[in-house]
Amino acid sequence: MKRFLDLADFEPAQIRDLLALAQRLQDSPEPGALAGKILGLVFFNPSLRTLSSFQAGMARLGGSSFVITPGQGTWQLETRLNAVMNGGAAEHIREGIPVLASYCDALGVRAFAEGKNLEQDLGESLFRMIDELCDKPLINLESAVNHPCQALADWKTMDDLAVPQRAKFVLSWVYHPRALPLAVPAATLHMAAQRGMEVVVARPEGYALPESIMNKARAAAAAAGGSVSETTDRAAAMAGAQVLYAKEWGTTAHYGDADADQRLRAELTDWCVRESWFKHAARGAKFMHCLPVRRNVAVADEILDGPRAVVRREAFNRMVVQMAVLYRMLKS
Amino acid sequence: MKRFLDLADFEPAQIRDLLALAQRLQDSPEPGALAGKILGLVFFNPSLRTLSSFQAGMARLGGSSFVITPGQGTWQLETRLNAVMNGGAAEHIREGIPVLASYCDALGVRAFAEGKNLEQDLGESLFRMIDELCDKPLINLESAVNHPCQALADWKTMDDLAVPQRAKFVLSWVYHPRALPLAVPAATLHMAAQRGMEVVVARPEGYALPESIMNKARAAAAAAGGSVSETTDRAAAMAGAQVLYAKEWGTTAHYGDADADQRLRAELTDWCVRESWFKHAARGAKFMHCLPVRRNVAVADEILDGPRAVVRREAFNRMVVQMAVLYRMLKS
Amino acid sequence: MKRFLDLADFEPAQIRDLLALAQRLQDSPEPGALAGKILGLVFFNPSLRTLSSFQAGMARLGGSSFVITPGQGTWQLETRLNAVMNGGAAEHIREGIPVLASYCDALGVRAFAEGKNLEQDLGESLFRMIDELCDKPLINLESAVNHPCQALADWKTMDDLAVPQRAKFVLSWVYHPRALPLAVPAATLHMAAQRGMEVVVARPEGYALPESIMNKARAAAAAAGGSVSETTDRAAAMAGAQVLYAKEWGTTAHYGDADADQRLRAELTDWCVRESWFKHAARGAKFMHCLPVRRNVAVADEILDGPRAVVRREAFNRMVVQMAVLYRMLKS
Repeated sequence: MKRFLDLADFEPAQIRDLLALAQRLQDSPEPGALAGKILGLVFFNPSLRTLSSFQAGMARLGGSSFVITPGQGTWQLETRLNAVMNGGAAEHIREGIPVLASYCDALGVRAFAEGKNLEQDLGESLFRMIDELCDKPLINLESAVNHPCQALADWKTMDDLAVPQRAKFVLSWVYHPRALPLAVPAATLHMAAQRGMEVVVARPEGYALPESIMNKARAAAAAAGGSVSETTDRAAAMAGAQVLYAKEWGTTAHYGDADADQRLRAELTDWCVRESWFKHAARGAKFMHCLPVRRNVAVADEILDGPRAVVRREAFNRMVVQMAVLYRMLKS
Repeated sequence: MKRFLDLADFEPAQIRDLLALAQRLQDSPEPGALAGKILGLVFFNPSLRTLSSFQAGMARLGGSSFVITPGQGTWQLETRLNAVMNGGAAEHIREGIPVLASYCDALGVRAFAEGKNLEQDLGESLFRMIDELCDKPLINLESAVNHPCQALADWKTMDDLAVPQRAKFVLSWVYHPRALPLAVPAATLHMAAQRGMEVVVARPEGYALPESIMNKARAAAAAAGGSVSETTDRAAAMAGAQVLYAKEWGTTAHYGDADADQRLRAELTDWCVRESWFKHAARGAKFMHCLPVRRNVAVADEILDGPRAVVRREAFNRMVVQMAVLYRMLKS
Repeated sequence: MKRFLDLADFEPAQIRDLLALAQRLQDSPEPGALAGKILGLVFFNPSLRTLSSFQAGMARLGGSSFVITPGQGTWQLETRLNAVMNGGAAEHIREGIPVLASYCDALGVRAFAEGKNLEQDLGESLFRMIDELCDKPLINLESAVNHPCQALADWKTMDDLAVPQRAKFVLSWVYHPRALPLAVPAATLHMAAQRGMEVVVARPEGYALPESIMNKARAAAAAAGGSVSETTDRAAAMAGAQVLYAKEWGTTAHYGDADADQRLRAELTDWCVRESWFKHAARGAKFMHCLPVRRNVAVADEILDGPRAVVRREAFNRMVVQMAVLYRMLKS
């Protein structure tokens, strides 16, 4: 495996195969598998789980990591092509990425969406550039509209919990003080569709996911025998749901317009998940979230501290599935 | 060993046993003892010695580490129970700590006192919460009122230097531009008491250590055959002293009141250790400090560059004793 | 090897020997050579290549590293002798450096020039103090006026490309929005002189390299059978050049005077390397730069993206030659 950039690049069978490898490595550790291998990790944006789980996972396989955080201990990196670099950035990724790639055996990069122009973010122009610049195996640690490591961990979490393939999976928008990127909702939607689930996206007016993302998920659902639909009716969505996956994201109706987004979301503070949301859900319905989560803003304590929440397992599975990705990329 | 949170949790015999292990590992390295083991290190506050000595010690035993610094490359973490998280913190330690613990084999956490409410800081409420959230071995890298790694290193330093058990040990307040936490003075006092020394706390009016801390030390001294007293008379304290341990801390008379503290300490700039302090001390009396230390503010160059100072040895012993703690926790 | 501070401390034969070791380790990896060894890395200033290549190189030899960044996660460190430390710095390097050295088997330190007083920076007073304080092998990761790791990597890069020993090597000043240190130009000049090349320094009025640096290079050139000259005539310098090494630096005529420097450099924005510079250069002339580089400010895209640029190879060779330095220092 030379690239792990989007779950959509893999067939469901390949994903199940990767998950089986993850389980095998969990059950039968191979502490020397990646001895001498080096993972480079570049974080243009903050991280807790990705930062620690990749370093821990690499170490569990006998390998090493180094971390680069542009602007913190390292120069700010320019990403625009043909830029006249007389601003804050001292180095261009056209130098930075190939140089870092030359020091390691695989490179992981996190670069969130710019959040100004929707078409541009949907086009993943920055990650495409990084992809071209990196001649080593490359892992997407969250790009403008993707987060395949999270999606793979979430798939495994549902497998671990024996959530049926055809179960009803609700991806619901939840409140947050600010507009967040589309990466996790897009990746989650596609993952659930690809797994063959009955997926419903519940979101307020103004927060519909972009049509290209919906269409890509619909195609995956069709291939896998599932379905994708969307609604503003939260209660209807939750009826019979076996999984509620909550996520915060910014308005797509006024993408990149922080003021318009604030006006819209000011009315939406009741999109904070509480136990009452589950009144007509399936018995034992689970609550998922990729973390970090703002307690009592996006999700109430009663949910996160209650028996439905499987968020810690999702987070633990980040390390588990990433070890499988690293193993596929680097095991000689 | 599942917890290393407070030297007071251990009997003196257990501590001497741990110090013997530290010496054994120093004399006969075991470079593969913790192969494949992973230490997670979480720093809510700055560090030099702890950050580097734990990573180095873990590596010397064949293990690995990762470092998380909330607010620097990682989300700010909320610590208040039931908080409505609409401020700067994106994640709660109720998620953060269990997730990080799930990636590693032992977790170390540094979280200084809030410094507003004395009872609350004395209660170690934050560290108690972290303790409950962490299902892996846990190490206190300095909490509100404790710093057991420093205390253990200081105990070993006195053993290395053959400072007698019954020696006179002066813990003296020294000047600093700002109020610093009580963690080191509290831990140092208890360590010297537990070692059975004749401990005198010298501090100006307004800087008495809290009664609960004094009482806990008195009990330890009684059990070990030593004593604990306190005075504002620095010269009397220093008479016959074999060890002077200098430390900066904030007023307890007006705890959390920065202005009142400033007014008090403005008169106390002569509490800067100089050679003249040792006029009536025992021959060859030693000078100790946990570092970092402000030269010519808390302690004069002539002391730190002179033969009394054993501060570098104390710092080196941080790594040595921490290796014993890690070994006890993680060696299969 | 106990010190790697300045290429001038080594005979050309010793350098060639070190480069041969670098090549040998590249061709025949020794993944266990430094097992159990620990490298401490201290960065007073930002880094991308040094930070990652030292960690990666150490890991490729089986060793470990830790990173300390004063002011970021670690206390600010005072460097002035006899300072009364009532400002921002909580710790002095007189404590910090020996303590860090005591945790590791070799220490690397980056500390740029203060950039205020030329004589003081030329005297390397800070690095001399660090040198005295460190009782472990010490590596200069870029000091006030030196950067031996970069110089060694550049020497190897020219060897890799079969640039003849007697080739014409132009070190040219290029534009940058701010005054940068003299470390790389000084180290580069000396390296090319020591390699026996025909070295020409091309720089505008006001940007002559200090006489002591020029004289040191002239002596090295004389010993190696090469030459060193300087000119403000860029075109003349480039005639027949086989290598153009571009570098930004601050005025020496008004050293430490940011305003005067700005007035001078405001007229010099055409010192941005373009293909036209190579009109009368030797066939196949190469372009070198230590990175980071500001595209279209110091060097045009057409150069960095074209066939002359060997900057990525220079950066890769940083890791390669540093592994040889570490091997010499730490291999038992």
